[in-house]
Amino acid sequence: MPRTSALILYGATDIGANSFSSDLLWRTGFRAPDPFYLIEMGGRTTLLVSDLELERAKKEAAVDRVVAWRKYHKPGIKTTLDAVGIYLEKCGVKDLRMPSQLPYSVVAKLKSHFRAEIIPGDVYPERIVKTAREIAQIREGQAAVEHAMHLVRRILARSRIRKSRLYLGGRVLSSEFLRESIQADLYRLGWLALGTIVAGGKHAADPHCEGTGPLRSATPIVIDVFPLSVRSHYYADCTRTFYKGGPDARQRAMYETVRQAQELALSQIRGGVDGYDIQQSVAKFFHQRGYPTRRGRSTEGFIHGVGHGVGLDIHEAPRIGGVHVKLPVGSVVTVEPGLYYQKASAKIPSGGVRIEDMVMVTATGYRNLCSLPKDLSWAVL
Amino acid sequence: MPRTSALILYGATDIGANSFSSDLLWRTGFRAPDPFYLIEMGGRTTLLVSDLELERAKKEAAVDRVVAWRKYHKPGIKTTLDAVGIYLEKCGVKDLRMPSQLPYSVVAKLKSHFRAEIIPGDVYPERIVKTAREIAQIREGQAAVEHAMHLVRRILARSRIRKSRLYLGGRVLSSEFLRESIQADLYRLGWLALGTIVAGGKHAADPHCEGTGPLRSATPIVIDVFPLSVRSHYYADCTRTFYKGGPDARQRAMYETVRQAQELALSQIRGGVDGYDIQQSVAKFFHQRGYPTRRGRSTEGFIHGVGHGVGLDIHEAPRIGGVHVKLPVGSVVTVEPGLYYQKASAKIPSGGVRIEDMVMVTATGYRNLCSLPKDLSWAVL
Repeated sequence: MPRTSALILYGATDIGANSFSSDLLWRTGFRAPDPFYLIEMGGRTTLLVSDLELERAKKEAAVDRVVAWRKYHKPGIKTTLDAVGIYLEKCGVKDLRMPSQLPYSVVAKLKSHFRAEIIPGDVYPERIVKTAREIAQIREGQAAVEHAMHLVRRILARSRIRKSRLYLGGRVLSSEFLRESIQADLYRLGWLALGTIVAGGKHAADPHCEGTGPLRSATPIVIDVFPLSVRSHYYADCTRTFYKGGPDARQRAMYETVRQAQELALSQIRGGVDGYDIQQSVAKFFHQRGYPTRRGRSTEGFIHGVGHGVGLDIHEAPRIGGVHVKLPVGSVVTVEPGLYYQKASAKIPSGGVRIEDMVMVTATGYRNLCSLPKDLSWAVL
Repeated sequence: MPRTSALILYGATDIGANSFSSDLLWRTGFRAPDPFYLIEMGGRTTLLVSDLELERAKKEAAVDRVVAWRKYHKPGIKTTLDAVGIYLEKCGVKDLRMPSQLPYSVVAKLKSHFRAEIIPGDVYPERIVKTAREIAQIREGQAAVEHAMHLVRRILARSRIRKSRLYLGGRVLSSEFLRESIQADLYRLGWLALGTIVAGGKHAADPHCEGTGPLRSATPIVIDVFPLSVRSHYYADCTRTFYKGGPDARQRAMYETVRQAQELALSQIRGGVDGYDIQQSVAKFFHQRGYPTRRGRSTEGFIHGVGHGVGLDIHEAPRIGGVHVKLPVGSVVTVEPGLYYQKASAKIPSGGVRIEDMVMVTATGYRNLCSLPKDLSWAVL
């Protein structure tokens, strides 16, 4: 970039903050509850912050320079953004590159003072390829998830069936109890699991239903855990489907079909492959096996993408779904086909099955970051 | 709004999600990891979601109608936003109201199809006045915070001083240990405390420094806890400053000055008062008592606002600071003056002191939601 050209980012970086920007967190490593600005110019990064954050930003932010925007709050200057504009003018900026995800108000104001270039896609496309440090963070999360999945298996193994309900130590075993057990286990390991899916029976037929109430025997129990690191904000993501008692022939067939679909998808993962092709081949496989996808009044069958990238966001590039996207070497993606049916038919049971691994894409294939088994004998407790 | 006019919102609502929108969560109560759209038209609310979220949204979202955007993904339609545009056209929408916080890309595309009105300020200004249900949520958080503050006092009381360092059960008592104790206590109560400030000595001189390393005697220890409910996403916020051993005369004077400044601020809280006036009176009070505020190479003194609104966001309207803002009856605000000095001088010790209550604004004054004492005798352990 020439000296008169700059890139500007805006957002907050604390977990749960309004206007949370993973791009800003990725670029600066600085955590703050309120929005701040990052300027990139001539290869140097400058953070513009409030007085409140000034001293901390100097110590904690991975940037070349930290400036208090108050310094440019000259008389007549009303808003923080106006002060930032004055700073940019003082730096000689003429052309300003802005991500299309910035708030409209920020772009509209800056556009009236600078020659604006809106960046249509990702600001930092290089985020898609993970560094060794990032892989290590994600692996740490995966290890925590597997720890929790083993806990789930121990709890289900120890539970007893009475009139098709599960009991643990004489008490009803509920989705809520199992979710709490998983999340508390992860919390102790420094990972924040929220909205963990523990969906049994009909709840399992809805991919994002968290699940509530007593768990039952001989129905699929979908466990989807996707914690983020309290420290680094990196995510991990993993799903397994378990049964306590049963499953019957229809359920076994559906589980096996999903497992094979996942293997089919995995077998196609390698650097440069088009995610769209994987999505199509899985959809075709399910169709050929007699598991239709319907999208009418109620949606059922294979109703979501095969997978998504994982990093500072739980769902990030590259997506493996209905859009043409090539998977770069070094990206981390989930591979998680699933089938969902609200109502049973002659061949298909009601409920849902999903099996999800997280893998790192390599030139010739992938490295599976998940070491959990997925054969049915492991999944039945 | 006439039938041809609509409001559109866009964002995600899970904790930690990119593009998190508290407005969307407030209006719909629906939690989702990926962005979705809300349309308000003719007094009716419609959610536009992916197939993946369709069935769950029908059950969980507090809206009149849920529509899968895929339904409008006609041939030639490439993006979700294009499909949403087709839906709006089908509904006969001509005028589209859009919050200025929407991503630029969303507004720019919709502007080319509809007469656009950009809402400059808050989309839902009524969020500032809390309902009884919201107050109950915030009070629940405050109770959890007070539980944790009592735990802090018990730990500090039980600790021992050796060569000016604090020890608990023979081990060094660190900021990290105390923070983990607080956060684990809150987690058990269903509240997610992240970045809890446990800042002793020089760390306390930086308002947002989390604090690290061994805690010491006879220096201020600032504890600022601001958890959010895992269930409701409402926040609570509270700060106290403690001493183990000491404090000396300068520290006592600084603590007393902050305590009096907080009382001064509280005494001015009532419906309709201008937050700017409170900020000015606190700044004047500190100055008159001989605690200067400097904003040069390093910032010190009273370097942040007196307070801020609390709700689904940790920092929301109304702010009590350098801008003219009237406090409405029924709003919930923090009142938290503080003083911060990196270096000691003849009269002023190094370190920081902050005392923060959360109050509900009433017509004649306020109701303090915090029941913790703040006299120095309570704060010295």
